[in-house]
Amino acid sequence: MSETVHHSLESLRALIEATLRGLGLAEAHIPPVADIILAGERDGGGSHGLYRLLMVAKTMRMGTANAQAVPKVVDVAPAMVRVDADGGFAPLAFQLGLPVLVEKARAGGIAALAVNNCAHFSALWPDVEAVARHGLVGLACTPSHAWVAPAGGRVGVFGTNPIAFGWPRPGKDPFVFDFATSAASRGDIELHRRAGKPLPEGWGVDADGKPTTSPEAVLAGAMLPFGGHKGSAIAAMVELIAGPMIGDMTSAESMARDGGRGSAPLGGELVIAIDPTRFMGPQEVDRVQAAEAMFGAITGQGARLPSLRRYAARRRSEQEGMQVPRALLDEVAALLAG
Amino acid sequence: MSETVHHSLESLRALIEATLRGLGLAEAHIPPVADIILAGERDGGGSHGLYRLLMVAKTMRMGTANAQAVPKVVDVAPAMVRVDADGGFAPLAFQLGLPVLVEKARAGGIAALAVNNCAHFSALWPDVEAVARHGLVGLACTPSHAWVAPAGGRVGVFGTNPIAFGWPRPGKDPFVFDFATSAASRGDIELHRRAGKPLPEGWGVDADGKPTTSPEAVLAGAMLPFGGHKGSAIAAMVELIAGPMIGDMTSAESMARDGGRGSAPLGGELVIAIDPTRFMGPQEVDRVQAAEAMFGAITGQGARLPSLRRYAARRRSEQEGMQVPRALLDEVAALLAG
Repeated sequence: MSETVHHSLESLRALIEATLRGLGLAEAHIPPVADIILAGERDGGGSHGLYRLLMVAKTMRMGTANAQAVPKVVDVAPAMVRVDADGGFAPLAFQLGLPVLVEKARAGGIAALAVNNCAHFSALWPDVEAVARHGLVGLACTPSHAWVAPAGGRVGVFGTNPIAFGWPRPGKDPFVFDFATSAASRGDIELHRRAGKPLPEGWGVDADGKPTTSPEAVLAGAMLPFGGHKGSAIAAMVELIAGPMIGDMTSAESMARDGGRGSAPLGGELVIAIDPTRFMGPQEVDRVQAAEAMFGAITGQGARLPSLRRYAARRRSEQEGMQVPRALLDEVAALLAG
Repeated sequence: MSETVHHSLESLRALIEATLRGLGLAEAHIPPVADIILAGERDGGGSHGLYRLLMVAKTMRMGTANAQAVPKVVDVAPAMVRVDADGGFAPLAFQLGLPVLVEKARAGGIAALAVNNCAHFSALWPDVEAVARHGLVGLACTPSHAWVAPAGGRVGVFGTNPIAFGWPRPGKDPFVFDFATSAASRGDIELHRRAGKPLPEGWGVDADGKPTTSPEAVLAGAMLPFGGHKGSAIAAMVELIAGPMIGDMTSAESMARDGGRGSAPLGGELVIAIDPTRFMGPQEVDRVQAAEAMFGAITGQGARLPSLRRYAARRRSEQEGMQVPRALLDEVAALLAG
């Protein structure tokens, strides 16, 4: 049933890049967009891997994203940089903003990057991991489409509004987490609908605001935030700081603009970077060890430390390559056929 | 049964200040500590109101907090300021750091304040509300004592690790939330224990890591984060950025130092301030309206907007004064007796 095709990182990158080129994406965008899609497949696949290439293609075909976008870096303030993505995909814009963010965070101790006017199709962990690999603490968030009702409500206001965090660990992969502030992703609800399975409790409400486990009812009603009113508050914070605060759209505005076409959410992303050595000062070695002791206390009792599974998948992919579903590869091939 | 005594804001402030003076707190600390305790009682009372005066007294008597502390402001970096609280209570240190934080956030766009080496007895909302009343977006967090196991674990690693956020609203009270990243507060569990009531599901585990609704078992085992593995990740973030990142203690270190004496957690607090007008630029009026539209979409469907209850209580207290439990006033009076 699950027929797969073996790919090395190199062969899959070549396939992704050739497809993006064939779709007409401007040359400057091809490596950063391919990096993100490849990283998703390498680190565990699923909905954030090669599958995203289909979403990128759809977004380009509908003209929602500007395939020829020329991102522009703007120095907003001593500790702030903006990249206007010119309506294109986020990865190139982020790549151009990152060195300025890093430089500003090192100079001032803390800095913020706003990527504006971008089509956002990817997870946020690659961005905070990149910040952390520069030795900086990273926090990133972005709104999406207003599918998620506030706790106690019934009408979508928030997006799935992911929040991601990265912490550099000397000699180790950074500690990274990245999750939607909705109880589940839209994709998870779709998967349950297709499989005819009821949803777990707490994922959503019907159009009258009543809790339901019916995927159809939730898709016609609203999704719910994780963690009740506390998760709802975090979702509101993401909406504000990665929407209006950076001069960009809310999830409601982004969804209205999409008009039901189902393209990648357009809008902004906020990334904050902090140089941990500044506040730590002469205690740096000791405080880094205190953080490591906390990680050890988590894994030592058998609890899961976010990102370890992702890094394990990455090591496997680097050593053995990946098994990619043939059906997905067929869909990718079909993008350039006819 | 619930015998209460009427107090105006003025009379209660006088009582709090006289008590702090009688306890031997240095004069410079009295107004800021009294402000925080009074604000808690004014905005709804309960465990964050006058009750905290008992905790402050206990912490002073045990010598865990330095009653004569002289906080020192240190300019760490262009966008970072530190206040060494000298082992004293946090409010004076925060008050001294706030104007520098505000100035740095206006100059650079974003800035961070670390309050180090302080005894933290209060909620965080007064701090982010103060930041928001300067027209800035505020985020604050602090570790506490390691009572909270990571999701899937059984041994305390995190504190109740509150996170607070403030967003300025023109002509209105700021949008503010402040909550523990544990499923419940330690005080809530104590209240259930005293009342002999079972806990709601999900608040904690026993010493073997098994879910339990017994308050005694949770107090002997561990509390749990809100919202499963997502809340657990947020708790870890708070632990890292308001502990080691600012050169201060983790919740485990703070608890070890307390040695079971039950004083206010000693450690640090991180406050980040962002000037929202910088990224908004010429779109400021329009983007502020987009944020207001989001608030309207929440309240318009009957969902709760955090902080509205608190402001309603504040208006009532300002107009009518407060009914304070006589038993609590008796306990406060007893602090100076004998």
